[in-house]
Amino acid sequence: MTTTQRVGVWFHGARGSVATTAICGLLALRAGLTAPTGVVTEQLGLPDGVLPGWDDLVLGGQDVSTVPLRKRAAQLTDDGVLPARLLAALESQLDEVEPWIVHGYRPTGPDESILDGVRRTAAAITEFRQANGLERVVVVNVSSTEPIFPARPEHDDLARLRAAIEQPGDEVLPPSSVVAYAAITAGCGYVDFTPSAGIRLPALRAYAALRGVPYAGSDGKTGETLLRTVLAPMFAERAFAVRSWAGTNLLGGGDGANLADPERAGGKLESKRRGLAALLGPGVTAPLHIDNVPDLGEQKIAWDHVSFEGFLGSRMSLQFTWTGCDSALAAPLVLDLARLTLAAQRAGQAGALTALAAFFKDPLGADEHRFAEQMRHLREWAGELGAGR
Amino acid sequence: MTTTQRVGVWFHGARGSVATTAICGLLALRAGLTAPTGVVTEQLGLPDGVLPGWDDLVLGGQDVSTVPLRKRAAQLTDDGVLPARLLAALESQLDEVEPWIVHGYRPTGPDESILDGVRRTAAAITEFRQANGLERVVVVNVSSTEPIFPARPEHDDLARLRAAIEQPGDEVLPPSSVVAYAAITAGCGYVDFTPSAGIRLPALRAYAALRGVPYAGSDGKTGETLLRTVLAPMFAERAFAVRSWAGTNLLGGGDGANLADPERAGGKLESKRRGLAALLGPGVTAPLHIDNVPDLGEQKIAWDHVSFEGFLGSRMSLQFTWTGCDSALAAPLVLDLARLTLAAQRAGQAGALTALAAFFKDPLGADEHRFAEQMRHLREWAGELGAGR
Amino acid sequence: MTTTQRVGVWFHGARGSVATTAICGLLALRAGLTAPTGVVTEQLGLPDGVLPGWDDLVLGGQDVSTVPLRKRAAQLTDDGVLPARLLAALESQLDEVEPWIVHGYRPTGPDESILDGVRRTAAAITEFRQANGLERVVVVNVSSTEPIFPARPEHDDLARLRAAIEQPGDEVLPPSSVVAYAAITAGCGYVDFTPSAGIRLPALRAYAALRGVPYAGSDGKTGETLLRTVLAPMFAERAFAVRSWAGTNLLGGGDGANLADPERAGGKLESKRRGLAALLGPGVTAPLHIDNVPDLGEQKIAWDHVSFEGFLGSRMSLQFTWTGCDSALAAPLVLDLARLTLAAQRAGQAGALTALAAFFKDPLGADEHRFAEQMRHLREWAGELGAGR
Amino acid sequence: MTTTQRVGVWFHGARGSVATTAICGLLALRAGLTAPTGVVTEQLGLPDGVLPGWDDLVLGGQDVSTVPLRKRAAQLTDDGVLPARLLAALESQLDEVEPWIVHGYRPTGPDESILDGVRRTAAAITEFRQANGLERVVVVNVSSTEPIFPARPEHDDLARLRAAIEQPGDEVLPPSSVVAYAAITAGCGYVDFTPSAGIRLPALRAYAALRGVPYAGSDGKTGETLLRTVLAPMFAERAFAVRSWAGTNLLGGGDGANLADPERAGGKLESKRRGLAALLGPGVTAPLHIDNVPDLGEQKIAWDHVSFEGFLGSRMSLQFTWTGCDSALAAPLVLDLARLTLAAQRAGQAGALTALAAFFKDPLGADEHRFAEQMRHLREWAGELGAGR
Repeated sequence: MTTTQRVGVWFHGARGSVATTAICGLLALRAGLTAPTGVVTEQLGLPDGVLPGWDDLVLGGQDVSTVPLRKRAAQLTDDGVLPARLLAALESQLDEVEPWIVHGYRPTGPDESILDGVRRTAAAITEFRQANGLERVVVVNVSSTEPIFPARPEHDDLARLRAAIEQPGDEVLPPSSVVAYAAITAGCGYVDFTPSAGIRLPALRAYAALRGVPYAGSDGKTGETLLRTVLAPMFAERAFAVRSWAGTNLLGGGDGANLADPERAGGKLESKRRGLAALLGPGVTAPLHIDNVPDLGEQKIAWDHVSFEGFLGSRMSLQFTWTGCDSALAAPLVLDLARLTLAAQRAGQAGALTALAAFFKDPLGADEHRFAEQMRHLREWAGELGAGR
Repeated sequence: MTTTQRVGVWFHGARGSVATTAICGLLALRAGLTAPTGVVTEQLGLPDGVLPGWDDLVLGGQDVSTVPLRKRAAQLTDDGVLPARLLAALESQLDEVEPWIVHGYRPTGPDESILDGVRRTAAAITEFRQANGLERVVVVNVSSTEPIFPARPEHDDLARLRAAIEQPGDEVLPPSSVVAYAAITAGCGYVDFTPSAGIRLPALRAYAALRGVPYAGSDGKTGETLLRTVLAPMFAERAFAVRSWAGTNLLGGGDGANLADPERAGGKLESKRRGLAALLGPGVTAPLHIDNVPDLGEQKIAWDHVSFEGFLGSRMSLQFTWTGCDSALAAPLVLDLARLTLAAQRAGQAGALTALAAFFKDPLGADEHRFAEQMRHLREWAGELGAGR
Repeated sequence: MTTTQRVGVWFHGARGSVATTAICGLLALRAGLTAPTGVVTEQLGLPDGVLPGWDDLVLGGQDVSTVPLRKRAAQLTDDGVLPARLLAALESQLDEVEPWIVHGYRPTGPDESILDGVRRTAAAITEFRQANGLERVVVVNVSSTEPIFPARPEHDDLARLRAAIEQPGDEVLPPSSVVAYAAITAGCGYVDFTPSAGIRLPALRAYAALRGVPYAGSDGKTGETLLRTVLAPMFAERAFAVRSWAGTNLLGGGDGANLADPERAGGKLESKRRGLAALLGPGVTAPLHIDNVPDLGEQKIAWDHVSFEGFLGSRMSLQFTWTGCDSALAAPLVLDLARLTLAAQRAGQAGALTALAAFFKDPLGADEHRFAEQMRHLREWAGELGAGR
Repeated sequence: MTTTQRVGVWFHGARGSVATTAICGLLALRAGLTAPTGVVTEQLGLPDGVLPGWDDLVLGGQDVSTVPLRKRAAQLTDDGVLPARLLAALESQLDEVEPWIVHGYRPTGPDESILDGVRRTAAAITEFRQANGLERVVVVNVSSTEPIFPARPEHDDLARLRAAIEQPGDEVLPPSSVVAYAAITAGCGYVDFTPSAGIRLPALRAYAALRGVPYAGSDGKTGETLLRTVLAPMFAERAFAVRSWAGTNLLGGGDGANLADPERAGGKLESKRRGLAALLGPGVTAPLHIDNVPDLGEQKIAWDHVSFEGFLGSRMSLQFTWTGCDSALAAPLVLDLARLTLAAQRAGQAGALTALAAFFKDPLGADEHRFAEQMRHLREWAGELGAGR
């Protein structure tokens, strides 16, 4: 099998900070202008050809915003994410990506059905694939976190869902799930980097299984939760009794404004809490906040305070402060996930890619939250991908 | 094989804070007065009988101090390590341990040889074993950290060492190594919880191999280094480029005063540094300090600041503050190590117990510093111990 | 004027943690069993006799709880506030205070008026004063923070308020204000250490002015806000542009549970915010949380993160973590405020004691929040008290 | 008195980071391209004309380096101190300053006397003043911190010093003191922003008094010490018993490399310690470190941990982390000090300007270390300067 076939990455939210950083980053890697720092797949030690190379990836996507990529990239430079020298060097390549970003899906009007939206989206992806001569395409959701979408019985039953999406005016799915549905319809692998509904709904997961496409999600693990899944296993292994684990997140940028809305934050807070309970059991007091602090820009700051009990009831504590650059943390993982999901699909895998749990706050199909164990699983799985060529 | 045989733990430094906490803790566990919080071996899920039970362990040891155990325990209560209710409940049991703590080894005078000291120490351990009808005894070094001992060619060659220790007045070994030599001579397993020379000298390790006794060390991993070996692998797995990792340790108690002496701190600082370099490679700026802050008493505080680079050269940081109770962190690990080494010897193992690396800053015979991997190794090894009965 | 006249301190919430700590602390100071660490009035350098001495203060109060003081004091020992040796030494003196703590005010039933409650409370205070031969009494509110009480037009007009409190079944005032009203009626000075309504209502302040009694409040400044009023002036003096000041408070004990109720926390969060805006102006993003973390007990932990801009737009930050013992921080200030308010009343002062602003998050009658300026004002005022004898 | 006379600022160390930032900052302020954030004198509320305006200041100086200002400014942009838009806007103005930066003083050879060096330096300053038609010039030391210079009896006696500096080959003074001597000789005010000997030597202070020139120093207070002098008074006012105050400083840039040399750090560590002892008394354990962490660049990070005792012996702690931009913190204070010293000289003041203590870690001629008190003194003094015109 040759490894030179070109493949595509279709961003849902292609003009957002994360996608723009991923696009600029890929272009910079391809041009040899930056090192693959923060790129997990580059340190797995896989033989060449197991994963698509930087030159093999073609970029496209959709967004409800129409701000040009050049302008979004310039904003990233102002925010300290993209070095000025890279902005200058990449502008013409950005112009080549620009035409492949189409208008994003918006909730349908009263005369349209969800199925109409699905078909339009699937058609755009297919057009992107055919026009660029791509072997396959992976769809990656990096759009803004949606408010929690009300549960519907159709979400649990593919047949009922199929019926509902044909009804004009019935908004049975949020945009993230419409795009996921379209991705499956177009035969594409799907990655959800956000806590939105996306492909989480059981009916969509059944649909993916039926169509034999792989998927992974959800909610990228880039900061506080990454540290929690690294540190909590230590408390368990050392038999410490964790009594409380309090957390505060200060976010600027669009994400901060978005998550200051308690409805939208709900999903993220829930997925963070689930992870901690899975690691430490149910009896830990764990207040958690996300605050919008616009002046921080792309910087995000997490403070966690852990109170625990040791031998003879002695009281001890650990606190940490994590200061990260939001989009720079997320973007390389997005590239990793795109490569890994494309390789999985090539290898014939379908359904939830549980080996990718290390990338997510709330890993679909996996119960393992311990980061070291997740990475071990990833290495084994990726090694088999390599061996199976 | 029955599991009811009694075994012994011989503390080198039996009246120190760590040993006294371990002794009180064991008595409290045996009496059901405290939970095994912080005891690693209790959460490994081993079948009964694989390890000696709390009732099977008989305590003794040696110390250059003669302060009674009751008084040392009362000091621990003042220092907030031992709850007052436990002190009151355990006093009579402490009196039963008291007679089995003998005068500690002191450097020999001009008319004595090191071998004289070895023989006296080995005789005391043997007397302890026989008088108590013990199947076997493990010797655990929890005495004060020694200054770095000058290297001697005899340290690398068992035959030359044997000759040297017969010479009156030739102090070829520090006390920690004399006791280790005696332990091997008496056929005992040996654990070094300190960074002193102890059994690290190649000649002593050769001697242990020759006599077929197991040993483990060195320098218990209880705080800052524990966190470093938990966190550093995350930076590596996520392909972050760590640029600097600065650390400051504030210690009170005897350990603080002891390690404020740069000569004595040297060993500990060295073992901390080796670990970080093993985890992150050689290019990381890593200033490290140990400060004596007497008012902190048994509390120890570590602050670490990690500066790292992510995707596109973005600069990020992590800092943590660990506030722990020194003896309460160390004591349960000492009990763990005693149980595991006794079980290893029963199972016929000899030489460096590399499976115990998770307990040490500077694991003898092992290159693995990543805590999660170390724990996985420990679990596998302990599982085999259990299966092999 | 002689200085040997005895005076009284009447605690509203006399069986709470703060009052019990203040009571035990005063008894310990009187007995010479503890140093006046944390007592501001002892380091002002005032001549003897300006303030009532520890021997001159007689203690009493009211509480809706009936748990005996001995039991509350034992709880403080368990919580690490009161050393065990003091508990043992003070038990008999606690028994002498016990009879002077009467049943606390509870909201009146449909057949009673607020005035009935006022009269009963005032009578209890007067009985306490007369029976003990006290020159005067100060009433100090250290009861649990009340939920925000709905505004009523009567709160702003003394005549209307007087009419309303005569109506049976009209709960026009919360308990804290009933007790404040009673204190004024009994001719007592009044201190509000909580953010409850207390004496803050304009009608009550008018009543205090009319009756010529002094008062001070509100909401004791013991931790995060203390640091904010110390640090914020530095940012202003150095012309830094503070962009955000985020805060998280972790509280255990009764206060944590109480303030986890957003209605009750409302008052405290408001007073904290007012202070920050007064110090730094209106444009600072300042998210603030109070979390209930029961396992912390009497410990309270505050983490603040300040993001600011310096010369040429450079971005910098300050973060701090304050770990304090709640009741041990509050109790000495309660003793300070009692002494100072008693001395002010003796000196003929009435109305808001603005010189006591340094003690409060939300100082009544004062606009100054800068701690250093507040302390300067206190020193000048206290010096005049001394000079005026 | 008109206010339009032009005055000069002569930097000793004119091509260093602090001087270059001050130069660029002044040019940006003059051009209205930046706000005076971080400039203390702009928030004192002084009437126009009390201090020299940004347009009145003419810049010059000396440096042993010959790297052009443009290049140094570009380095500051790379280090994140100087925004790229300012660098572009200021380049031509930098070229106007360039010719007024002369070769710096280097230790004399065996055939030269210190006096020769003094004369050359004084001549260069005088030439700068005359050629630019300046009313007066202030000399500001912002060169690298010198190693501690060995004490000499001549340092305490002006007559003996005068004799010694005439001896060829006798290096009786370090370069900082040679430049200070030259400044006085040229009739200039002098500011020492470093902990070097500079004008601290009693003989030089006597010389300044004799010649009637004002001076201020030493060692600019920009980070950890600033916070200490803000926080320590709070502990004193609240009667807390501080037991330990540990500090760690992580510095990159030239300052980090320089201060990693224990000899050079000695001066700074000493001045930091003196301040803490002055604020809290002698019994506080106060370990203090300065670490060179090159990857931090212009960022400097200080972590302080304060352990203190409150009421009834309760143990509490405060810790803070300060993350600042070194040159951006220092540069506006350098401009402040230049303006204030020029105004003081115009007003006829001579000797140590104790009113400027707020700017220094080790204020010459002043015992007051409390920042709030220092600022009050500064405001009063500056107000009198304004009134006296």
